[in-house]
Amino acid sequence: MHVAFQGVHGAYSEAASKGIFGSGARTIPSETFAGVFAAVERGTADRGIIPIENSLAGSIHENYDLLRSHKLHIVGEVFFRIEHALMVLPGSSLRQLREVRSHPQALAQCSEFFRRNPRITAVPFFDTAGAAMRVADSGDPAAGAIASTFAAARYALTILKYNIENRHTNITRFLALARSPWKGDRATPSKCSIVFRPAKNQVGTLFRTLGVFALRDIDLVKIESRPDPSSPFEYLFYIDLAGNPRDPNVGRALEHLQEMAAEYRFLGVYPKGKMR
Amino acid sequence: MHVAFQGVHGAYSEAASKGIFGSGARTIPSETFAGVFAAVERGTADRGIIPIENSLAGSIHENYDLLRSHKLHIVGEVFFRIEHALMVLPGSSLRQLREVRSHPQALAQCSEFFRRNPRITAVPFFDTAGAAMRVADSGDPAAGAIASTFAAARYALTILKYNIENRHTNITRFLALARSPWKGDRATPSKCSIVFRPAKNQVGTLFRTLGVFALRDIDLVKIESRPDPSSPFEYLFYIDLAGNPRDPNVGRALEHLQEMAAEYRFLGVYPKGKMR
Repeated sequence: MHVAFQGVHGAYSEAASKGIFGSGARTIPSETFAGVFAAVERGTADRGIIPIENSLAGSIHENYDLLRSHKLHIVGEVFFRIEHALMVLPGSSLRQLREVRSHPQALAQCSEFFRRNPRITAVPFFDTAGAAMRVADSGDPAAGAIASTFAAARYALTILKYNIENRHTNITRFLALARSPWKGDRATPSKCSIVFRPAKNQVGTLFRTLGVFALRDIDLVKIESRPDPSSPFEYLFYIDLAGNPRDPNVGRALEHLQEMAAEYRFLGVYPKGKMR
Repeated sequence: MHVAFQGVHGAYSEAASKGIFGSGARTIPSETFAGVFAAVERGTADRGIIPIENSLAGSIHENYDLLRSHKLHIVGEVFFRIEHALMVLPGSSLRQLREVRSHPQALAQCSEFFRRNPRITAVPFFDTAGAAMRVADSGDPAAGAIASTFAAARYALTILKYNIENRHTNITRFLALARSPWKGDRATPSKCSIVFRPAKNQVGTLFRTLGVFALRDIDLVKIESRPDPSSPFEYLFYIDLAGNPRDPNVGRALEHLQEMAAEYRFLGVYPKGKMR
């Protein structure tokens, strides 16, 4: 199994892909999210993994746009806790440390550590895993990085501190993508993801849309509106619901929804994800 | 009028604050979003400005959390187009340029420029405006920054290229905050923002909630669900609606909504914002 992810080896996305596909998965780094979609489409990779929402930073609309403009299927999800570790070369210590590299967002999330250690300078870098790679390459005992424990293992670095982030509720939801839909049975607890644009006036249509699900006792896990980037004054809705379209109750609800939509994309049905 | 914003002088937030409060506003930089809320609460600033959602990166849940945990009022909004400019010291040129600093996200959004100019190295920095300040301080004609035209003016840099981003639909919505609510009249086209947590089962309650608005012909501008960070398995809903609670139709809808909510926070009523 080959899995494409955005970033360099050691990225949180790569760690999440191991969480969903097991440690045997062969991972293929890509510079961009669009590159992940392209790798799966042309068969370089069997699966792609993309972050879709974060508990602090919200839904990644860029990846919803890519889901809309490509014909891949969501086949899985995983919830991954973002935990930052401080890492250095083996043999180095906190006393020797002078500079710590990471992505600016990760550095900001660890600001209390830098406040408590004023001798240590925070240095911005492109990404967390790249910062870890750079420490490994530098051979400098005064250099450190903030990245995942997975990145530390990848670049043979020593972890000085686990969970150096200020707060601990940073969770990212990742989606797994494939060329073919998931073939799981109806007994597996499942979710579906949909993007739709109502045909007429928003208020009434959204209300009737939710009626489609509410009157059939189908649980909505997520609903989000977003101005359509390609046609201002129109709205897109992202909906995740509990269920499998092979269940006739869910199947009929989705048929009914399509009747009300100017645009409708079924993005996939997949087993309900776990926290890793 | 003193306005607190997150970042250093020249930040997009500061530019947005000039868009909403005029160029005469005195701006006060703060290191964190929490610092913006604190500055308004203790009266160091009359207003705060915070980004709340971005057309590529989604809603900023961190700022919704701060809105919930503080007692400030939303009193305005502005939609601000994020346009990146390439800037250097006066007298320098593209030919002399060797290194361009910016936030990693801005560098990624300008990747095509770096692909076309392989002699120029992208260097990550904490933020766009800080990168501009650094170029100004460096005195180095080979150093450049990617930041707003507003940052170029602030640090007296020369703009070599406008709009060097790959795509041009990067819009951020900013909110203005104050200690007292907006006193505008009912004739001004207005919006309200609400956070609520339904009292009982999500599907039925959400459906009935939207009924409150749909049956009164009140237009919902935004609806978004989010797992409650403080109590898993419960959902928060962010709702923006068109109207003013002093209009009895809107006022009664909001009263009705409160009856169905375990948590209800009216975040503010404010004039409908413009694109700047």
